[in-house]
Amino acid sequence: MKNEKPKVIFLDVLETLLDINPLKEEIAKLLGGRRDLAECWFTNLLLYSLVDTLNDRLHTFREVAFSSFEMLATANNIVYTKDEVLKVLNLVSQAPPHSDVPEGLRLLKTAGYKLVTLTNSSHTTVNEQIHFAGIDEYIDACISVDDIGYFKPHRHVYRRAAERMGVEPEDCLLIAAHGWDIAGALESGMRAAFIARKNSALYTLAQNPEIAEDTLIDVADQLIQL
Amino acid sequence: MKNEKPKVIFLDVLETLLDINPLKEEIAKLLGGRRDLAECWFTNLLLYSLVDTLNDRLHTFREVAFSSFEMLATANNIVYTKDEVLKVLNLVSQAPPHSDVPEGLRLLKTAGYKLVTLTNSSHTTVNEQIHFAGIDEYIDACISVDDIGYFKPHRHVYRRAAERMGVEPEDCLLIAAHGWDIAGALESGMRAAFIARKNSALYTLAQNPEIAEDTLIDVADQLIQL
Repeated sequence: MKNEKPKVIFLDVLETLLDINPLKEEIAKLLGGRRDLAECWFTNLLLYSLVDTLNDRLHTFREVAFSSFEMLATANNIVYTKDEVLKVLNLVSQAPPHSDVPEGLRLLKTAGYKLVTLTNSSHTTVNEQIHFAGIDEYIDACISVDDIGYFKPHRHVYRRAAERMGVEPEDCLLIAAHGWDIAGALESGMRAAFIARKNSALYTLAQNPEIAEDTLIDVADQLIQL
Repeated sequence: MKNEKPKVIFLDVLETLLDINPLKEEIAKLLGGRRDLAECWFTNLLLYSLVDTLNDRLHTFREVAFSSFEMLATANNIVYTKDEVLKVLNLVSQAPPHSDVPEGLRLLKTAGYKLVTLTNSSHTTVNEQIHFAGIDEYIDACISVDDIGYFKPHRHVYRRAAERMGVEPEDCLLIAAHGWDIAGALESGMRAAFIARKNSALYTLAQNPEIAEDTLIDVADQLIQL
């Protein structure tokens, strides 16, 4: 119910909490310095994770990330070694938080909210990420698609995540910086709040979230007032 | 069955038969001359068509194409008018065939193959496309996702397309220039042949197609020998 405090707040991780631009810079270096290809790499990663989901073939997000790299390199005649690519992909565990994130999480936590990450990355990765980013004290639980068998934004992911927390989807709110994630959460019956990071936008053919702001602090300010 | 002639050959249209680079050039002009954003636009179009498919919300491919444009423009603070974007999107009906396509289709047709387009675009669009490209004489039928309710590469699209033609998926072969399309066709039980157009690559986590060549003529040469 809008105007009521959600019982659980789910948080997307990559780009929502953590800044993966340093990772993209390193991917770009492997792709002949082409930053545009690094952006393509991330979008392709999302695209192919959905190709897997549609056809019930779940690989890990890391496997799809590697495959997306391979595809781009092949299509652009770029030479690489598997080791150097895997080494760069490991940087996903060392992504810094966006500058507004520690304070935003602190505000939400102080207001009594239960905070749960919900990510396409594996359990191991998300645990490393929140520890490296120094935000583990704010996070009550981490749910990964590892537990579920689909990638976001399949609505089942959000529904199963709510189930895991012992609540109904309508008692949950997802905070995310991607239009596709917001669309999937709203389809599942969850509520949603969008953070407009650089290059991110809402999916204009989907429902609108109840909150759309530029930072997690601004989102938290609104949620605290409920 | 491999080593037997497929009863129906399905053909993907955009990028497989038709060259949409002129369309992408016009999209780039609307996006401040940024050709990299035009590539992102097409990948986002594919991504968001799958977001719709996952959540049973079928818009037309054109609607998703427009929305993908809007999202990129918004995220990059680019001003546009709806009319100019729709006008550019209309160019999808005037895409020239790749240079190898008329001869490739002629070879397949002369060998007695039944040729059917299978595309995410609407019926109206594909009919305009094959007429404009001057290849309608080779095409026996056009199947669009309009008829089916999912976008490719959901395996149901391929299965329903086979059903429409009165054959089993294993009696069909899809020719496509996208790794995701090949992956979906193989998941459905169809056979597949890949054409490596500029920037295209096979999905390395999916099964391999029985044929992978650089042109439709080379693909046709192999299919004729079956």
